Amino acid sequence: MSLLVTGSIGIDTVKTPYGVSENCLGGSSVYFSMAASFFTAVRFVGVIGSDCPFDLAEVFAGRDVDLTGLEIREQSKTFRWVGTYHNNMDDRTTDSMELNVLAEAPPRVPDSFRDSRFVFLANTAPVLQCQLLEQIQEPVFVAADTMNCWIEDCLDDLKALLEKINCLIINEDEARMLVDEHNLIKAGEKILNMGPSVVIIKKGESGSIMCSADGDKFILPAWPAAEVKDPTGAGDSFAGGFMGYLAQSGKTDFETLKTALAYGTVVASFTIADFSLNGLTAIDKADIDGRFETLRKLTNF
Amino acid sequence: MSLLVTGSIGIDTVKTPYGVSENCLGGSSVYFSMAASFFTAVRFVGVIGSDCPFDLAEVFAGRDVDLTGLEIREQSKTFRWVGTYHNNMDDRTTDSMELNVLAEAPPRVPDSFRDSRFVFLANTAPVLQCQLLEQIQEPVFVAADTMNCWIEDCLDDLKALLEKINCLIINEDEARMLVDEHNLIKAGEKILNMGPSVVIIKKGESGSIMCSADGDKFILPAWPAAEVKDPTGAGDSFAGGFMGYLAQSGKTDFETLKTALAYGTVVASFTIADFSLNGLTAIDKADIDGRFETLRKLTNF
Repeated sequence: MSLLVTGSIGIDTVKTPYGVSENCLGGSSVYFSMAASFFTAVRFVGVIGSDCPFDLAEVFAGRDVDLTGLEIREQSKTFRWVGTYHNNMDDRTTDSMELNVLAEAPPRVPDSFRDSRFVFLANTAPVLQCQLLEQIQEPVFVAADTMNCWIEDCLDDLKALLEKINCLIINEDEARMLVDEHNLIKAGEKILNMGPSVVIIKKGESGSIMCSADGDKFILPAWPAAEVKDPTGAGDSFAGGFMGYLAQSGKTDFETLKTALAYGTVVASFTIADFSLNGLTAIDKADIDGRFETLRKLTNF
Repeated sequence: MSLLVTGSIGIDTVKTPYGVSENCLGGSSVYFSMAASFFTAVRFVGVIGSDCPFDLAEVFAGRDVDLTGLEIREQSKTFRWVGTYHNNMDDRTTDSMELNVLAEAPPRVPDSFRDSRFVFLANTAPVLQCQLLEQIQEPVFVAADTMNCWIEDCLDDLKALLEKINCLIINEDEARMLVDEHNLIKAGEKILNMGPSVVIIKKGESGSIMCSADGDKFILPAWPAAEVKDPTGAGDSFAGGFMGYLAQSGKTDFETLKTALAYGTVVASFTIADFSLNGLTAIDKADIDGRFETLRKLTNF
């Protein structure tokens, strides 16, 4: 089934103990689309300025990513982010951020995308996520990401969004903040009470927890990566693998969601193995399937 | 097969956000034995002073725990520990500790225990762990615990111990400290190079990782406990469930180790649900088996 993503396109400069990657392509919708394209066709919605040095058609060449929803604003500048990851890769500092075009009106969802059935609303202001979602006619399964600043500054907007989506994908610290609950199992249940039927709490190198309103739970460790070069894009790649598999299968029962979560985990593990999109562009679907089977052996008993 | 444990017996005072448990029975060999006794007979080696208010024969009544190795020193005092767990239960403060009898010569392993095949050396000075181990004639599988102070102060003794044991069970922070490596997969491999054929790294609420010298790996989340009342004894209960299952099965191949790790995880989850040993005395083997099957459903895909 059709899969649409709305999110950012960025020019990133990333510093990690392994080196510096200057002015490379980043952004949530870019990582998501690259990850999801291993599974299914992706409808891409995002906006850049005229300064963007990347040709996205070239970036996604050979992949089924429909760029009809890519808007280039001649008078605007592309989103830029400069960040540093410290020793253990868990701590990230944003050294500078220029929202630029992301501070303007969001892009329009093209008419040809309005019948999309699976939708991922990458992290942005929840009011914008709602506006984007309203343009989709009859979505089957809508997942969204959010972050601390929206929980702190736009909680009512976020609550309105939660009533409209099927799945929230959120970091553990943000989950705790959202419902003021340290225990993640309880936090997941409290978030389910706010609207979504599925909550996925991401725990970085400790994996993820998925809870459903039906009472189902799934706990999955992260891939045991011996080397992490650049964690940028891990969360969006995770979402891309997850939603890509769901859209490919066309199902959302809990067993399918579990398999999708494992695929998301695997795809993210390739992302963090190299800078920018290099980890994802270096692999093919067979690499993903191979690691998926290994993850199963590593975790099943 | 026979299972022997050497470790502490303590009088604990524990404060957690759920309350205070004053002068209750604790100690590594006590938690271990209670946990392992669900699976197999346990040979108990430990020492107390004449001030100990607990009758261990009564504590273990109805369980197959052989107390021949319990030494009561009339002139000595029992080990005491006072600790506080803070908000999220991850941080623990030792408010006071009286080593008392633990600072004296270790107990002697009774002759009738010297043919033990499975051995757990609970946390104490590695030189004492070596002395205790030397009294066992032909062990099949020896596991040991250790902690930060021995890594800092007695590293050579600990290295000597690692060459004599089959399995080290260690917390993530201690694993990182032992081999100066943040990445736990790499840390596990470095520890394997120091001697043991199996390393288990415990990550608290994020579960555990097991690596073998044969290159096998297993990653298991913790039981998703919605309520943790008192984490004291979790590690020793984990080791007790793990070693108890191994001794019961008499095997140490990797598939058996995986099952044992899952049992250790489940048993520890009952320990932390209540103060002192109450979580373990409230259950029977069917409760453990039930939760074991649920853990399998929660993690397998």
